[in-house]
Amino acid sequence: MVLRWGHRPNRDARLTTHVALAARALGAHGLILTDIEDKNIKDTVDSVTKSWGGTFFFKMGIPWKKVVRDWRKDGGIIVHLTAYGENIGTSGVLCRIRSRKKNVLVIVGSQKVPGEFFSETVSDFNVAVGNQPHSECASLAVFLDRFFVGTELRKTFSNADLTIMPQQRGKKIASEKKSKKAVYGKQV
Amino acid sequence: MVLRWGHRPNRDARLTTHVALAARALGAHGLILTDIEDKNIKDTVDSVTKSWGGTFFFKMGIPWKKVVRDWRKDGGIIVHLTAYGENIGTSGVLCRIRSRKKNVLVIVGSQKVPGEFFSETVSDFNVAVGNQPHSECASLAVFLDRFFVGTELRKTFSNADLTIMPQQRGKKIASEKKSKKAVYGKQV
Repeated sequence: MVLRWGHRPNRDARLTTHVALAARALGAHGLILTDIEDKNIKDTVDSVTKSWGGTFFFKMGIPWKKVVRDWRKDGGIIVHLTAYGENIGTSGVLCRIRSRKKNVLVIVGSQKVPGEFFSETVSDFNVAVGNQPHSECASLAVFLDRFFVGTELRKTFSNADLTIMPQQRGKKIASEKKSKKAVYGKQV
Repeated sequence: MVLRWGHRPNRDARLTTHVALAARALGAHGLILTDIEDKNIKDTVDSVTKSWGGTFFFKMGIPWKKVVRDWRKDGGIIVHLTAYGENIGTSGVLCRIRSRKKNVLVIVGSQKVPGEFFSETVSDFNVAVGNQPHSECASLAVFLDRFFVGTELRKTFSNADLTIMPQQRGKKIASEKKSKKAVYGKQV
Protein backbone atom coordinates (compact mmCIF):
# COMPACT_ATOMS: atom_id res chain seq x y z
CA MET A 1 0.00 0.00 0.00
CA VAL A 2 1.13 3.56 -0.64
CA LEU A 3 0.98 6.51 1.75
CA ARG A 4 1.10 9.89 0.01
CA TRP A 5 2.13 12.70 2.32
CA GLY A 6 2.25 16.48 1.82
CA HIS A 7 -0.31 16.93 -0.94
CA ARG A 8 -1.14 20.57 -1.67
CA PRO A 9 -4.46 20.68 -3.56
CA ASN A 10 -3.67 23.53 -5.95
CA ARG A 11 -0.10 22.68 -6.68
CA ASP A 12 -0.06 18.89 -6.58
CA ALA A 13 -3.43 17.88 -8.03
CA ARG A 14 -2.15 16.28 -11.21
CA LEU A 15 0.99 14.88 -9.64
CA THR A 16 -0.89 13.13 -6.84
CA THR A 17 -3.35 11.76 -9.41
CA HIS A 18 -0.41 10.38 -11.37
CA VAL A 19 1.12 8.90 -8.22
CA ALA A 20 -2.17 7.14 -7.44
CA LEU A 21 -2.71 5.86 -10.99
CA ALA A 22 0.89 4.65 -11.20
CA ALA A 23 0.45 2.89 -7.85
CA ARG A 24 -2.64 1.14 -9.21
CA ALA A 25 -1.10 0.21 -12.56
CA LEU A 26 2.08 -1.06 -10.96
CA GLY A 27 0.55 -3.40 -8.46
CA ALA A 28 -0.15 -1.52 -5.21
CA HIS A 29 -3.36 -2.43 -3.40
CA GLY A 30 -4.34 1.11 -2.60
CA LEU A 31 -3.24 4.61 -1.67
CA ILE A 32 -3.95 6.74 1.34
CA LEU A 33 -3.68 10.48 0.87
CA THR A 34 -2.94 11.47 4.45
CA ASP A 35 -3.93 14.51 6.48
CA ILE A 36 -5.98 16.11 3.73
CA GLU A 37 -8.92 15.39 1.46
CA ASP A 38 -9.10 16.04 -2.28
CA LYS A 39 -12.38 14.81 -3.66
CA ASN A 40 -11.47 15.53 -7.28
CA ILE A 41 -8.52 13.17 -7.15
CA LYS A 42 -10.55 10.49 -5.43
CA ASP A 43 -13.25 10.78 -8.10
CA THR A 44 -10.68 10.49 -10.89
CA VAL A 45 -8.94 7.48 -9.39
CA ASP A 46 -12.18 5.69 -8.46
CA SER A 47 -13.52 6.32 -11.94
CA VAL A 48 -10.40 4.77 -13.51
CA THR A 49 -10.74 1.72 -11.26
CA LYS A 50 -14.43 1.39 -12.11
CA SER A 51 -13.73 1.45 -15.85
CA TRP A 52 -10.44 -0.41 -16.00
CA GLY A 53 -11.01 -2.92 -13.20
CA GLY A 54 -9.29 -4.24 -10.14
CA THR A 55 -9.76 -3.49 -6.47
CA PHE A 56 -7.45 -0.52 -5.97
CA PHE A 57 -8.69 1.74 -3.19
CA PHE A 58 -8.13 5.43 -2.61
CA LYS A 59 -8.61 6.72 0.94
CA MET A 60 -7.94 10.20 2.21
CA GLY A 61 -7.90 12.45 5.22
CA ILE A 62 -6.42 9.96 7.68
CA PRO A 63 -3.54 11.36 9.80
CA TRP A 64 -0.24 9.85 8.68
CA LYS A 65 0.68 8.90 12.24
CA LYS A 66 -2.44 6.79 12.52
CA VAL A 67 -1.73 5.02 9.20
CA VAL A 68 1.82 4.24 10.34
CA ARG A 69 0.70 3.10 13.79
CA ASP A 70 -2.04 0.83 12.40
CA TRP A 71 0.30 -0.62 9.77
CA ARG A 72 2.89 -1.51 12.36
CA LYS A 73 0.25 -2.94 14.69
CA ASP A 74 -0.83 -5.27 11.88
CA GLY A 75 2.75 -6.48 11.45
CA GLY A 76 3.62 -4.61 8.24
CA ILE A 77 6.91 -2.89 7.45
CA ILE A 78 7.42 0.62 6.12
CA VAL A 79 9.61 1.82 3.25
CA HIS A 80 10.20 5.55 2.93
CA LEU A 81 11.21 6.58 -0.58
CA THR A 82 13.78 9.37 -0.41
CA ALA A 83 16.75 10.44 -2.51
CA TYR A 84 18.80 10.38 0.72
CA GLY A 85 18.24 6.69 1.41
CA GLU A 86 20.06 3.52 0.45
CA ASN A 87 20.38 3.28 -3.33
CA ILE A 88 18.12 0.53 -4.64
CA GLY A 89 20.64 -0.07 -7.42
CA THR A 90 23.85 -0.29 -5.42
CA SER A 91 22.82 -1.59 -2.00
CA GLY A 92 21.14 -4.79 -0.97
CA VAL A 93 18.18 -2.92 0.46
CA LEU A 94 15.58 -4.53 -1.79
CA CYS A 95 16.74 -8.02 -0.77
CA ARG A 96 16.52 -7.02 2.87
CA ILE A 97 13.00 -5.69 2.38
CA ARG A 98 11.89 -8.87 0.60
CA SER A 99 13.52 -11.13 3.17
CA ARG A 100 11.26 -9.68 5.85
CA LYS A 101 8.28 -11.26 4.03
CA LYS A 102 5.86 -8.68 5.37
CA ASN A 103 3.28 -6.42 3.83
CA VAL A 104 4.93 -3.18 2.76
CA LEU A 105 3.67 0.36 3.19
CA VAL A 106 5.53 2.73 0.85
CA ILE A 107 5.68 6.36 1.95
CA VAL A 108 6.04 8.94 -0.83
CA GLY A 109 6.49 12.52 0.24
CA SER A 110 5.93 15.69 -1.68
CA GLN A 111 7.22 18.88 -0.14
CA LYS A 112 9.93 18.62 2.54
CA VAL A 113 8.97 15.68 4.73
CA PRO A 114 9.07 15.56 8.55
CA GLY A 115 12.42 14.37 9.91
CA GLU A 116 10.56 11.59 11.71
CA PHE A 117 10.02 9.81 8.39
CA PHE A 118 13.73 8.87 8.44
CA SER A 119 13.67 7.52 11.98
CA GLU A 120 13.05 4.01 13.27
CA THR A 121 9.75 5.07 14.74
CA VAL A 122 8.39 5.47 11.21
CA SER A 123 10.50 3.78 8.54
CA ASP A 124 12.09 0.36 8.50
CA PHE A 125 13.97 1.28 5.33
CA ASN A 126 14.86 4.54 3.61
CA VAL A 127 15.20 3.75 -0.07
CA ALA A 128 16.52 5.92 -2.90
CA VAL A 129 15.68 5.22 -6.52
CA GLY A 130 19.00 6.78 -7.37
CA ASN A 131 20.53 9.45 -5.14
CA GLN A 132 19.48 12.29 -7.41
CA PRO A 133 16.58 14.67 -6.89
CA HIS A 134 13.76 13.73 -9.23
CA SER A 135 10.15 12.66 -8.85
CA GLU A 136 8.14 10.74 -6.29
CA CYS A 137 5.99 9.43 -9.11
CA ALA A 138 9.01 8.05 -10.98
CA SER A 139 10.57 6.69 -7.80
CA LEU A 140 7.41 4.89 -6.79
CA ALA A 141 7.05 3.38 -10.26
CA VAL A 142 10.59 2.00 -10.33
CA PHE A 143 10.35 0.77 -6.75
CA LEU A 144 7.13 -1.14 -7.45
CA ASP A 145 8.44 -2.56 -10.73
CA ARG A 146 11.55 -3.84 -9.00
CA PHE A 147 9.73 -4.99 -5.87
CA PHE A 148 7.28 -7.08 -7.90
CA VAL A 149 10.05 -8.12 -10.33
CA GLY A 150 7.90 -6.96 -13.22
CA THR A 151 5.05 -9.38 -12.48
CA GLU A 152 2.67 -6.47 -11.88
CA LEU A 153 2.67 -5.61 -15.60
CA ARG A 154 1.48 -9.08 -16.50
CA LYS A 155 -1.57 -9.20 -14.28
CA THR A 156 -5.14 -8.68 -15.46
CA PHE A 157 -7.59 -6.44 -13.64
CA SER A 158 -10.83 -8.10 -12.57
CA ASN A 159 -14.27 -6.73 -13.51
CA ALA A 160 -12.94 -4.29 -16.08
CA ASP A 161 -15.43 -2.58 -18.35
CA LEU A 162 -12.57 -1.59 -20.61
CA THR A 163 -9.45 -3.54 -21.52
CA ILE A 164 -6.69 -2.43 -23.84
CA MET A 165 -5.65 -4.96 -26.44
CA PRO A 166 -1.93 -4.30 -26.93
CA GLN A 167 -0.98 -3.42 -30.50
CA GLN A 168 2.18 -2.68 -32.42
CA ARG A 169 0.26 0.19 -34.08
CA GLY A 170 -2.93 2.05 -33.22
CA LYS A 171 -5.39 1.71 -30.37
CA LYS A 172 -7.69 -1.18 -29.59
CA ILE A 173 -10.00 -1.46 -26.59
CA ALA A 174 -12.30 -4.31 -25.63
CA SER A 175 -15.47 -3.22 -23.90
CA GLU A 176 -17.64 -5.47 -21.73
CA LYS A 177 -20.50 -3.04 -21.98
CA LYS A 178 -20.82 -2.85 -25.75
CA SER A 179 -22.57 -6.01 -27.01
CA LYS A 180 -21.04 -8.14 -24.28
CA LYS A 181 -17.51 -7.93 -25.61
CA ALA A 182 -17.01 -5.65 -28.55
CA VAL A 183 -13.58 -4.69 -29.71
CA TYR A 184 -13.21 -1.23 -31.07
CA GLY A 185 -10.38 1.02 -31.87
CA LYS A 186 -8.69 3.01 -34.50
CA GLN A 187 -5.87 1.54 -36.47
CA VAL A 188 -3.54 4.33 -37.45
CA MET B 1 16.78 11.39 -25.45
CA VAL B 2 13.23 12.21 -24.45
CA LEU B 3 10.67 14.18 -26.44
CA ARG B 4 7.89 15.65 -24.32
CA TRP B 5 4.79 16.53 -26.30
CA GLY B 6 1.60 18.35 -25.33
CA HIS B 7 2.78 20.40 -22.38
CA ARG B 8 0.21 22.93 -21.14
CA PRO B 9 2.03 25.53 -19.03
CA ASN B 10 -0.61 26.09 -16.36
CA ARG B 11 -1.77 22.54 -15.99
CA ASP B 12 1.39 20.53 -16.57
CA ALA B 13 4.15 22.64 -15.04
CA ARG B 14 5.02 20.32 -12.18
CA LEU B 15 4.41 17.15 -14.12
CA THR B 16 6.70 18.16 -16.98
CA THR B 17 9.34 19.19 -14.44
CA HIS B 18 9.07 15.74 -12.86
CA VAL B 19 9.28 14.07 -16.28
CA ALA B 20 12.46 16.01 -17.04
CA LEU B 21 14.07 15.34 -13.65
CA ALA B 22 13.17 11.66 -13.84
CA ALA B 23 14.66 11.52 -17.35
CA ARG B 24 17.88 13.05 -16.01
CA ALA B 25 18.09 10.84 -12.92
CA LEU B 26 17.32 7.68 -14.87
CA GLY B 27 19.95 8.07 -17.55
CA ALA B 28 18.52 10.04 -20.47
CA HIS B 29 20.88 12.49 -22.16
CA GLY B 30 18.36 15.27 -22.43
CA LEU B 31 14.77 16.29 -22.98
CA ILE B 32 13.15 18.40 -25.67
CA LEU B 33 9.88 20.08 -24.76
CA THR B 34 8.40 20.42 -28.23
CA ASP B 35 6.22 23.10 -29.79
CA ILE B 36 6.17 25.33 -26.72
CA GLU B 37 8.51 27.14 -24.37
CA ASP B 38 8.33 27.16 -20.58
CA LYS B 39 11.22 29.10 -19.13
CA ASN B 40 10.36 28.27 -15.52
CA ILE B 41 10.77 24.58 -16.15
CA LYS B 42 13.99 25.08 -18.05
CA ASP B 43 15.37 27.17 -15.17
CA THR B 44 14.43 24.51 -12.63
CA VAL B 45 15.93 21.65 -14.61
CA ASP B 46 19.10 23.55 -15.53
CA SER B 47 19.54 24.58 -11.92
CA VAL B 48 19.28 20.95 -10.77
CA THR B 49 21.87 19.91 -13.35
CA LYS B 50 24.18 22.75 -12.29
CA SER B 51 24.01 21.72 -8.63
CA TRP B 52 23.83 17.97 -8.95
CA GLY B 53 26.06 17.47 -11.98
CA GLY B 54 26.03 15.70 -15.30
CA THR B 55 25.41 16.94 -18.81
CA PHE B 56 21.64 16.61 -19.09
CA PHE B 57 20.21 19.20 -21.49
CA PHE B 58 16.76 20.74 -21.65
CA LYS B 59 15.69 22.27 -24.95
CA MET B 60 12.30 23.67 -25.84
CA GLY B 61 10.16 25.21 -28.54
CA ILE B 62 11.31 22.94 -31.38
CA PRO B 63 8.46 21.52 -33.50
CA TRP B 64 8.04 17.81 -32.81
CA LYS B 65 8.09 16.98 -36.51
CA LYS B 66 11.54 18.53 -36.83
CA VAL B 67 12.86 16.60 -33.81
CA VAL B 68 11.55 13.34 -35.29
CA ARG B 69 12.89 14.12 -38.76
CA ASP B 70 16.35 15.05 -37.46
CA TRP B 71 16.50 12.01 -35.18
CA ARG B 72 15.68 9.67 -38.05
CA LYS B 73 18.16 11.43 -40.35
CA ASP B 74 20.87 10.76 -37.77
CA GLY B 75 20.01 7.06 -37.76
CA GLY B 76 18.18 6.92 -34.42
CA ILE B 77 15.04 4.95 -33.64
CA ILE B 78 11.89 6.20 -31.93
CA VAL B 79 9.90 4.64 -29.09
CA HIS B 80 6.46 6.04 -28.35
CA LEU B 81 5.29 5.30 -24.82
CA THR B 82 1.57 4.64 -24.81
CA ALA B 83 -0.78 2.42 -22.81
CA TYR B 84 -2.05 1.05 -26.16
CA GLY B 85 1.32 -0.32 -27.25
CA GLU B 86 3.08 -3.64 -26.82
CA ASN B 87 3.37 -4.48 -23.14
CA ILE B 88 6.98 -4.19 -22.02
CA GLY B 89 6.34 -6.98 -19.51
CA THR B 90 4.66 -9.56 -21.75
CA SER B 91 6.08 -8.94 -25.23
CA GLY B 92 9.60 -9.09 -26.52
CA VAL B 93 9.51 -5.43 -27.51
CA LEU B 94 12.41 -4.36 -25.30
CA CYS B 95 14.66 -7.04 -26.81
CA ARG B 96 13.70 -5.87 -30.29
CA ILE B 97 14.48 -2.27 -29.39
CA ARG B 98 17.86 -3.23 -27.94
CA SER B 99 18.73 -5.46 -30.88
CA ARG B 100 18.54 -2.46 -33.20
CA LYS B 101 21.59 -1.03 -31.39
CA LYS B 102 20.61 2.54 -32.22
CA ASN B 103 20.19 5.72 -30.25
CA VAL B 104 16.65 5.89 -28.90
CA LEU B 105 14.30 8.85 -28.80
CA VAL B 106 11.47 8.24 -26.32
CA ILE B 107 8.26 10.17 -26.98
CA VAL B 108 6.10 10.87 -23.94
CA GLY B 109 2.76 12.50 -24.57
CA SER B 110 0.51 14.38 -22.24
CA GLN B 111 -2.99 15.13 -23.44
CA LYS B 112 -4.39 13.09 -26.34
CA VAL B 113 -1.53 12.64 -28.80
CA PRO B 114 -1.75 12.97 -32.61
CA GLY B 115 -2.62 9.69 -34.32
CA GLU B 116 0.57 10.01 -36.33
CA PHE B 117 2.59 9.12 -33.22
CA PHE B 118 1.41 5.52 -33.64
CA SER B 119 2.34 5.29 -37.31
CA GLU B 120 5.54 4.13 -38.97
CA THR B 121 6.30 7.65 -40.07
CA VAL B 122 6.92 8.56 -36.44
CA SER B 123 7.40 5.56 -34.15
CA ASP B 124 9.44 2.43 -34.63
CA PHE B 125 7.88 0.94 -31.51
CA ASN B 126 4.77 1.69 -29.46
CA VAL B 127 5.52 0.52 -25.94
CA ALA B 128 3.18 0.20 -22.97
CA VAL B 129 4.47 0.08 -19.42
CA GLY B 130 1.45 -2.01 -18.61
CA ASN B 131 -1.76 -1.61 -20.59
CA GLN B 132 -3.45 0.47 -17.92
CA PRO B 133 -3.93 4.23 -17.95
CA HIS B 134 -1.48 5.82 -15.57
CA SER B 135 1.32 8.35 -15.82
CA GLU B 136 3.83 9.37 -18.45
CA CYS B 137 6.29 10.12 -15.67
CA ALA B 138 5.96 6.63 -14.20
CA SER B 139 6.05 5.00 -17.63
CA LEU B 140 9.19 6.84 -18.63
CA ALA B 141 10.88 5.91 -15.37
CA VAL B 142 10.16 2.20 -15.69
CA PHE B 143 11.08 2.20 -19.38
CA LEU B 144 14.46 3.84 -18.71
CA ASP B 145 15.18 1.59 -15.72
CA ARG B 146 14.49 -1.50 -17.81
CA PHE B 147 16.22 -0.18 -20.93
CA PHE B 148 19.42 0.53 -19.01
CA VAL B 149 18.99 -2.64 -16.92
CA GLY B 150 19.36 -0.59 -13.76
CA THR B 151 22.88 0.65 -14.59
CA GLU B 152 21.63 4.24 -14.64
CA LEU B 153 21.16 4.22 -10.88
CA ARG B 154 24.79 3.31 -10.31
CA LYS B 155 26.38 6.09 -12.33
CA THR B 156 27.93 9.21 -10.84
CA PHE B 157 27.23 12.67 -12.22
CA SER B 158 30.28 14.68 -13.27
CA ASN B 159 31.03 18.16 -11.92
CA ALA B 160 28.44 18.00 -9.18
CA ASP B 161 28.49 20.72 -6.54
CA LEU B 162 26.28 18.54 -4.38
CA THR B 163 26.31 14.78 -3.94
CA ILE B 164 24.07 12.75 -1.68
CA MET B 165 25.84 10.22 0.50
CA PRO B 166 23.31 7.38 0.81
CA GLN B 167 22.31 6.59 4.38
CA GLN B 168 20.12 4.09 6.17
CA ARG B 169 18.85 7.00 8.30
CA GLY B 170 18.93 10.76 7.89
CA LYS B 171 20.35 13.01 5.22
CA LYS B 172 23.95 13.52 4.23
CA ILE B 173 25.22 15.70 1.40
CA ALA B 174 28.80 16.28 0.26
CA SER B 175 29.47 19.73 -1.11
CA GLU B 176 32.39 20.60 -3.38
CA LYS B 177 31.91 24.26 -2.62
CA LYS B 178 32.22 24.18 1.13
CA SER B 179 35.91 23.87 2.10
CA LYS B 180 36.70 21.70 -0.91
CA LYS B 181 34.71 18.72 0.23
CA ALA B 182 32.69 19.13 3.36
CA VAL B 183 30.11 16.60 4.38
CA TYR B 184 27.09 17.97 6.13
CA GLY B 185 23.72 16.68 7.00
CA LYS B 186 21.35 15.95 9.76
CA GLN B 187 21.20 12.57 11.35
CA VAL B 188 17.65 11.94 12.48
